[in-house]
This record gives sequence, C-alpha cells and structure tokens, in this order.
Amino acid sequence: MIGRHKHCIALEDFSREEITQVLDLAVSMKEVLRRPIKKVPSLRGKSVVNLFFEASTRTRSSFEIAAKVLSADALNWTSATSSTTKGETLVDTARNLEAMRPDVLVIRHSASGAPRLVAEHVGCSVVSAGDGAHEHPSQGLLDCFTVREKLGTLEGKTLAIVGDISHSRVARSDLHAFPKLGAKVRLCGPPTMIPAGVEQLGCTVHHDLRTAVEGADAVIMLRIQHERIGDPLIPNTREYSRLWGLNAKKAQDWLRPGAVVLHPGPINRGVELSPEVADGPFSVILDQVENGVAVRMAILYLLAGGEPAEGKA
Amino acid sequence: MIGRHKHCIALEDFSREEITQVLDLAVSMKEVLRRPIKKVPSLRGKSVVNLFFEASTRTRSSFEIAAKVLSADALNWTSATSSTTKGETLVDTARNLEAMRPDVLVIRHSASGAPRLVAEHVGCSVVSAGDGAHEHPSQGLLDCFTVREKLGTLEGKTLAIVGDISHSRVARSDLHAFPKLGAKVRLCGPPTMIPAGVEQLGCTVHHDLRTAVEGADAVIMLRIQHERIGDPLIPNTREYSRLWGLNAKKAQDWLRPGAVVLHPGPINRGVELSPEVADGPFSVILDQVENGVAVRMAILYLLAGGEPAEGKA
Amino acid sequence: MIGRHKHCIALEDFSREEITQVLDLAVSMKEVLRRPIKKVPSLRGKSVVNLFFEASTRTRSSFEIAAKVLSADALNWTSATSSTTKGETLVDTARNLEAMRPDVLVIRHSASGAPRLVAEHVGCSVVSAGDGAHEHPSQGLLDCFTVREKLGTLEGKTLAIVGDISHSRVARSDLHAFPKLGAKVRLCGPPTMIPAGVEQLGCTVHHDLRTAVEGADAVIMLRIQHERIGDPLIPNTREYSRLWGLNAKKAQDWLRPGAVVLHPGPINRGVELSPEVADGPFSVILDQVENGVAVRMAILYLLAGGEPAEGKA
Repeated sequence: MIGRHKHCIALEDFSREEITQVLDLAVSMKEVLRRPIKKVPSLRGKSVVNLFFEASTRTRSSFEIAAKVLSADALNWTSATSSTTKGETLVDTARNLEAMRPDVLVIRHSASGAPRLVAEHVGCSVVSAGDGAHEHPSQGLLDCFTVREKLGTLEGKTLAIVGDISHSRVARSDLHAFPKLGAKVRLCGPPTMIPAGVEQLGCTVHHDLRTAVEGADAVIMLRIQHERIGDPLIPNTREYSRLWGLNAKKAQDWLRPGAVVLHPGPINRGVELSPEVADGPFSVILDQVENGVAVRMAILYLLAGGEPAEGKA
Repeated sequence: MIGRHKHCIALEDFSREEITQVLDLAVSMKEVLRRPIKKVPSLRGKSVVNLFFEASTRTRSSFEIAAKVLSADALNWTSATSSTTKGETLVDTARNLEAMRPDVLVIRHSASGAPRLVAEHVGCSVVSAGDGAHEHPSQGLLDCFTVREKLGTLEGKTLAIVGDISHSRVARSDLHAFPKLGAKVRLCGPPTMIPAGVEQLGCTVHHDLRTAVEGADAVIMLRIQHERIGDPLIPNTREYSRLWGLNAKKAQDWLRPGAVVLHPGPINRGVELSPEVADGPFSVILDQVENGVAVRMAILYLLAGGEPAEGKA
Repeated sequence: MIGRHKHCIALEDFSREEITQVLDLAVSMKEVLRRPIKKVPSLRGKSVVNLFFEASTRTRSSFEIAAKVLSADALNWTSATSSTTKGETLVDTARNLEAMRPDVLVIRHSASGAPRLVAEHVGCSVVSAGDGAHEHPSQGLLDCFTVREKLGTLEGKTLAIVGDISHSRVARSDLHAFPKLGAKVRLCGPPTMIPAGVEQLGCTVHHDLRTAVEGADAVIMLRIQHERIGDPLIPNTREYSRLWGLNAKKAQDWLRPGAVVLHPGPINRGVELSPEVADGPFSVILDQVENGVAVRMAILYLLAGGEPAEGKA
C-alpha cells in the first residue's frame, strides 16, 4: 500500500504524505541500487508483470530492473506478441494474466484510463506506466525525487514545464505532484499546446520561454513528439527549437546558478534541447533515469510487500 | 519422467496413471502458487527454454511463470527474432539450443509433429506447447485438472466439446485424455468441422448444441478462429453464434446445475460465448488459467527434476 | 578485467596472455555448465544488459544463459522495441541504459565501431557481440577454445578459414587470435571475397579449397550470407558450393585424420557445408555452441566480477 492506495495510477489521487512516502523509501532504494551487489531479497517469491501495449524499452526495463534488484520475478507481456492481436479485450487479457497470480501488474496503454479500468477488474495491484495523455505517475515521482535530491526540497521552489503540455502525461503527473510538495509551477509552450483553463490547477501560464525559465529552480523540457511535427497547430522543428528549445546561450543567460534541467527522454537533440544543454552542467537527465529505477523499486516494494514503509524499510 | 515418458508431446501416448501422476502433483503445485511467497527451490540450476514459432504470450507466460516459481531459469526464443529467419532448419535450431544445455525445451510450432521431430534429435526433454492441429497436451491436462477439481472426478462424467473440432489441437488432447479418466465425450459442431470417423475414438457426435450440452457435467467451448471466418465451409459469425454459441438463456435452460463451462481462451465474446456466460456462474475459465500454471509446474518438475513424483513431491 | 582490458571489443587488442586467461577460465566454466545443477553465485547482484540492434537469438541467448548460470540478472533490450525507433542516438540509448546501473553492456550493432563508441561514453564494461564486418570477439574466443580443446593446443597448428573473408567479423576475430596462440592461418575463398593485403596479418591466401584444407588441423567454414547471393561479385549458390563448399567426399579425401570442422552457424546446409559434413565425425559445430556459453561466462565473470582470474577462479 502507498498510503491508502493499493494501486499507483494517478498522482492526482495521491496526498503530499503518500508522495513523500514513496520518495523517502526511494532514497534507501537508490542506496541499494548503488551497491556493488545490487540485490536484496525483499520481494523474493513475488512477481511483477509488465503489460505493455505501447513500445517502451526504457520504462519497461526500468521496472524490470527494479523488480529484479528486489528479487521479484519479472515477466514481460508486450502487445506485439499478445493475444490482443487475436481480438481479446484489455480486461480479458488482464484477468487472464491475473489468474497466473502476479502481485503487481505494470501497464502501459495508449488509451487514457486503461490502467484504472484494469484495476477495477483484477485483484492484484496495478501500476500505470503511462496511459494516453492522462498520467505517468512513476515519471512524476522520479521528477519529484530528482528535484528534491538536487535542491534539497521542493518547498518554495519554482518549476517550469516547457513544451506540449496538452499531450504530455508527464506534465500532467508533474502538475499534480509538484504543488502538493510546495512548489510553484509555470507552464510554457505554444498557445495551441496549453490546455484551456489549466491555471485552475494553481499554475501560471507563459508563452515566452524567458519569462518561464528565468528565476526557476528547475526546468522540465518535454519531448516534442515526432508524430506531431507537421500538425498545422504546431510550429515546425526549426521554429519550435528557436522559440521553445533550450540551447547553451539561453541556458547561460536565463537560468539561475544551481538550476537543474530535466527531460523525460528520449531527447530530440537540437529540437527541445541542444546537445550542450543535454550533456551540460544544468542537466540532471541521467540522474532521472537512475532515480527512476529507485522510485519504481519503492513503488513495487510498497505495493507487493504489503507493509507500509515506516514499519519495514 | 512422466511415467515412462521423457517428453510431453501427446496425451495419446499417456496412460491413465501417467495423466493422474501429473494431475496429483499439480494439486500441490497449485498450493505453492497460492502462497504469498510463490517460490520453491525445486528446479534451481535447471533451465527451461521456450521455443515458440507461433505467437502465444499466454501459453509462453504460463510456462515461464511455472519455471520461475520452481526457481528454474527461463529463456524465451521466439521465431520473430530467431535464426530460422536466416533459413536454419527446425532441427538445427533445436540442436543448437540444446547445446546450450537446457533441461527442458518447450516448443510451439504451426506444423503438426514438430515437437516429436525435435525430440528425436535432442537429448533434453521436450514439451509440446501446441503443434498444428495435432495436440496441446498441457492444455488437455489443465482441462482434466479443472474438471476434476470442480466435479471431484471425471469417472462417469459426461463432457461436451463444442466448436471446430477438426482444427483444434485442444479438442484432440482432450479427446485422448478424458476417456482414459473415465469420462464420456460428446463432440458437437457444424458437420464440416467434425472429422469423419472420430466416433471410433469412443465419443458421440452431435450436430445440435442442445443434445450435446443437456445433461453434460462439463462443456468445453472451443475458440472459433477468426482467420477461418469467411471460409465457405463454415457459417458466418452471427450464424455460428446462433447455432453453436452459448448464451445466458441456453446455459440457463440446458445446463444442469453444477455444470461447468470451459474455454481455452482467448474468448471471442459474443461468438462462441456470450459475456454473461464467460463471466457467469458456470464459467471456470479463469480457474483454467491458474490451473495451467500449476499443471505446467508439475510437467516441468517431473521432466527436469528427474525423479518420479511419488518419491519426491 | 581481462588482462588490462575493461571491455571486450576486439581481439586485435588482446595479447596471447589475455586470450589465454579467458580460455583457461572457460574450462572451469564449462565444467559448471555441465553440472546437473547449473548455477553458481559468482555474479549474484550483478546485471548484464543485452543491447541488440541486429536480430540474433543465438548469440543473445548464449550471453543470457551465461549470465544466469553465474546468477547475474539479464535484461534484453532489442532495437525492435527500443526508443531508437523514436530517433534516439546510440550513445543516448547506451548512456540511459548505463544510468540503470548494469555491470556489463553486451552490444551487437550493424555498424563497425559501435561498441567502441559506446564504451567511450559509459562507465560500465562493454562486450561486443559483433559489430558490422569488424569483429565478433566472443566467437573468436570460442573458436580458439574449441580448437584448443579438440587438438590440445593451437601452437604449431594450421587452421584454414574458408568463405567470404571480407564481410566476416568472425574471420576477422579469428585472424587476430589464432596467430597469437601460435597457429598458422590459411585464408580461402573467391578472390572477390578476400581483402587485398590481408597477407600482411601473417596468413597465406588460397583460391583453391584443396590447397587450403589439405593438411590443415582445423577448418572454419564461414556462413555464406543469403543476402549476398545474387551479388555480381560472387558465384551463385550452386557454383559456390561446388568450388568452396565442403562435402563428404572432399572431407574424406582432403582432410587429415583428427582434423576438425567449425562453422559459426546458422549453417546453410548444402551450400558451404553438406549435411554429411555438418553432422559427421569431423564436425565440432555443436561443441562450439556449448563452448560459446562457457567462454561468455568467463568474459562476463572477468568483466563484472572485477577481479583477475588468477586471484579468484
């Protein structure tokens, strides 16, 4: 259980305390991950099934490694080879998998709401690894973890999220989590990429990159989706890069010293981030990847271990 | 060894005692699978290779989980990525794999007889996970296990198998196993889908669903293959459903109380089974999935463990 | 470490002592692999990532089994499902993977030099599982191991490599390793398939199969690439087989007693090798496959274990 939750589907549902429970446990998980012998028996005899309906070696591998470090068995079930190609419904696939007695089902799906639908029909815990443009909670948690680790706290910090906010499940999870930890959020992107009325979630909206990132403690640069390039509503790659991309000069001129730049990956180098920024001193992008494993270890431990962290970890 | 057998390729070869040996061991395997810590060291240091030339996440996952619960290492070798795409023969692939010293080779192939051909050329044990329209022995065993578990015994019971008998390896394995355990079998389906002369195996043939299922203790509804819809020899989906599908009203009117409905999955909801039946009180379909893992644990244990169940389990 | 090396990328870099260190350790690894309980805890808590940009179940499985026998965790990352399809660069993919803290990255890539490029950007050890037409070092090592095992030594032996030398990374690794162990190498193939000036590496070049294999202690028959058949520079299959293929009669007439025939697999039966030779008394092809696991165990142990073999194995 993460606080009151048997599942990890949306940070919208999570309280400050529940988010903090995961982050605190992830600190010790990261310590385990950094040991020469990266193996603890915490989840021995537990099993984690990765049910991925969208290609994602990155996130799937992160969950798989997290499971294995905790000694859980990990099983990959990808849509390319699944019986969904034989016309089976999502719920049937999930219930069938559940009958094989996994402890946690990690699910990624192109349809928003798919993990919650599955959670309503199975007895085991469900973790969303991203659903449509809804949420990507483990990414939101690793973003929180990384910012907290680098800045000490999110309390009173200012975070900017830049890019296609409308279609980003990462942005949505971040937007639900950051304010609960005391941070102020600025959203920035082309007007067509900012959902109307999003200010009601307690953030400010900017259409100029400089006003968004100047003075910010952390900047989250979203990935521009290749498949959306060419969409008449959005600028072309070169224009996007010029207006919304972060390059070395802008970073040097506008970011405050000690600010950090995040990106959920994979990076389109030269579009939303120049290589100099991606690999430069502000970047904490590879920390995010490592922290992702630690955060997922914490999530799996809390959901499959069955005991609250305070009593065990 | 399962009785006299080093391999598990066809229930046609298995005696009543050999089938019962697997089912009895699967009872304790199911108990292991239901523990909070689903892990026993029985097959530690043994390895199971899944060599799948047809997509089947379901069966492959069941074998993979079975292997892991017993602490065996599981390796997946699927045709999409295999060197058979480089023109290697089936036997060469199998002998190459065998040289890597697996204890059990689980093989699925679209050609009937492929597992037996492989078994003749390798030194390790071979388990068929379905070959062409020949047999699917672990499915037959899990069907036996499920009916026995629900009805107490198969002795004197009447089982109906409904659908495309001709092309079903599930039907063929069931048909070889059920009578050995004392059950009477009724086959039912469109005349074009029943092999000529099948009565010689000791079953009765019906072309009317009602006469087949009325009074039966268990009904096995086969999956209608999507790729066969449109075949001039078989009815269209709507007609198939009307004549050979089981819906709530037919189940209510025709099935005896306590009867069970099985399906090998994945279900075409609304074709061979209505959702009300698939998810209703007669259905033991998800039990089949769980029992499948238990039965496969028993098969792997007997073949890789090297000792007869009576002396060990 | 293998001698001075943190990586295993090219046998060109390896000294006689470094090659021998791997081969000697592989002897004990093969003994482990042949135990009824094929499991030692040597690499418990270590992880090996297979990063394959070319399909190769055979080599990937060999590394995966090697990792698991040593109790390491193995993770497969194949290009079909990787975020390289989202346009990520090779180095970004590798650095992301590295941030998940693997101990060894095994990489196969169609571009010569890819493993070395990756090695320059990551902190963990890198093993090449074949890069373009450059090298396939673990194959070269297993070829050395197999010849040494069968003939006792390579010192003073004569080895013939037959086929498309120009495009073969296997030939290139063999050619760098054999002379260091004291063997003389004869290259043989159509003139268009022999790189100009290759004699400078200390081998002799033959365009007649008989002169190449007569008196040789070991013959390595390379795989003719299907995709190259039809190339105007090379003969067609029938002509290739007649001139450069080894059949039973040629083997009987030309090979010395006790000579061994190797092939990296998968075999094109009837092209470079007749079935009688592939499955006959000269053939050590399946030994190569088994030895491949042992050699890869040795490589992974030396690189992930962190201690030189003399002090530990």
